[in-house]
Amino acid sequence: IRTGNGYDVHAFEPGDHVVLCGVSIPHDKKLAGHSDADVGLHALTDALLATCGAGDIGTHFPPSDPQWKGVASRIFVEHAARLVRARGGRIANADITLICEAPRVGPHREAMTETLSEMLAISRDRISIKATTNEKLGFVGREEGIAAIATASVVFQGDVPE
Amino acid sequence: IRTGNGYDVHAFEPGDHVVLCGVSIPHDKKLAGHSDADVGLHALTDALLATCGAGDIGTHFPPSDPQWKGVASRIFVEHAARLVRARGGRIANADITLICEAPRVGPHREAMTETLSEMLAISRDRISIKATTNEKLGFVGREEGIAAIATASVVFQGDVPE
Amino acid sequence: IRTGNGYDVHAFEPGDHVVLCGVSIPHDKKLAGHSDADVGLHALTDALLATCGAGDIGTHFPPSDPQWKGVASRIFVEHAARLVRARGGRIANADITLICEAPRVGPHREAMTETLSEMLAISRDRISIKATTNEKLGFVGREEGIAAIATASVVFQGDVPE
Ligand SMILES: [Mg+2]
Ligand SMILES: [Mg+2]
Ligand SMILES: [Mg+2]
Repeated sequence: IRTGNGYDVHAFEPGDHVVLCGVSIPHDKKLAGHSDADVGLHALTDALLATCGAGDIGTHFPPSDPQWKGVASRIFVEHAARLVRARGGRIANADITLICEAPRVGPHREAMTETLSEMLAISRDRISIKATTNEKLGFVGREEGIAAIATASVVFQGDVPE
Repeated sequence: IRTGNGYDVHAFEPGDHVVLCGVSIPHDKKLAGHSDADVGLHALTDALLATCGAGDIGTHFPPSDPQWKGVASRIFVEHAARLVRARGGRIANADITLICEAPRVGPHREAMTETLSEMLAISRDRISIKATTNEKLGFVGREEGIAAIATASVVFQGDVPE
Repeated sequence: IRTGNGYDVHAFEPGDHVVLCGVSIPHDKKLAGHSDADVGLHALTDALLATCGAGDIGTHFPPSDPQWKGVASRIFVEHAARLVRARGGRIANADITLICEAPRVGPHREAMTETLSEMLAISRDRISIKATTNEKLGFVGREEGIAAIATASVVFQGDVPE
């Protein structure tokens, strides 16, 4: 088994909703970014890529490339999951922590879990979505942006560590 | 095996001690929070819950609920460990990184490890407590609060990834 | 299997290069620190030590000890990897996320991966190096320093969780 981590941040800008873990949530700001700025899915994409040493989200989807402008980040996660499977990996579990003062994540956890279960083609009990505030401290506490931490564990067939 | 992450922050306020990983440490401030504000145990609770997709610490222990006021965070960790075991999980290891400029954690590591070994009912070599400063940078560096990162790995019986 | 995490930060100071994941990169600043301040390798050292509950980098290499002044952080990683192996562990994978606005990490990823493969004596596909900016937010965004997050998974022989 191999475990990867992921970390991402996006800054707020004027707007009326954010997209977090594939779910659109009404909010008094939006997240800035080339794609839909889904900070949770970007962190998860990195965690999945890490389990097979396949670079990071920027390697596969350069922000300078206009074809990714405004796209749903679901395509990044699905690309990473396909790559993991192509190398013989099976996803044991995926875990995302969203760090923000607002919006509240709890009411959307079920929808996020359902969406991720489809994206990753694994059962819902293998998916975890957590949220915490930063207790008003730092850039998250000043509501300048949202951070996310992800972990993914993948079992590779016949994989015996050296 | 499934691996979960946890992240938590608590802000300093006037006081004379902090509680970290179940150990009370004399300090010139305390951590603000509804419970004993044990940032290390809160991060670990989230990491354990994540291994079985069981929501987060706020799902199980809402800060708005007066019954958790001032309680020892040990009960949160023990709740999460019981839940993991009820689902057939065995805790392979637990790891906590405390991020603060002060107090010094090293002199209390042995006591923290012993306490966590009891809480989780696993041997001490399966528990890791680490500490680092933030090199005077950011909210941790300005001594506005303490952050913690946790990782927990749990083996679920007969668990074959999809 | 046991999974450990690591987190480290180093502040910038005037200089002309930084050392990241064992590779020297020309830059308009350097990272302050007692050793070569390789924030990625320090986080990885902590993640490795965590898998066997062996304290943290400060336990093994106190910054107050003059013998570690200016040394290459490779010796910290190699020490941790030896310790893991002495306890019967085999490293399944190692993953590092570098968080900085600059310098760019991508052009050096191959060299970093090669260097880490040698240090850890594991194949390159077991190593992951990722990078992300902090979107100009917080101390990383203000280019006051660089942060790193690491994860290491280690299989211990005959290890059955309790
Ligand atoms: Mg992003
Ligand atoms: Mg808390
Ligand atoms: Mg360091």
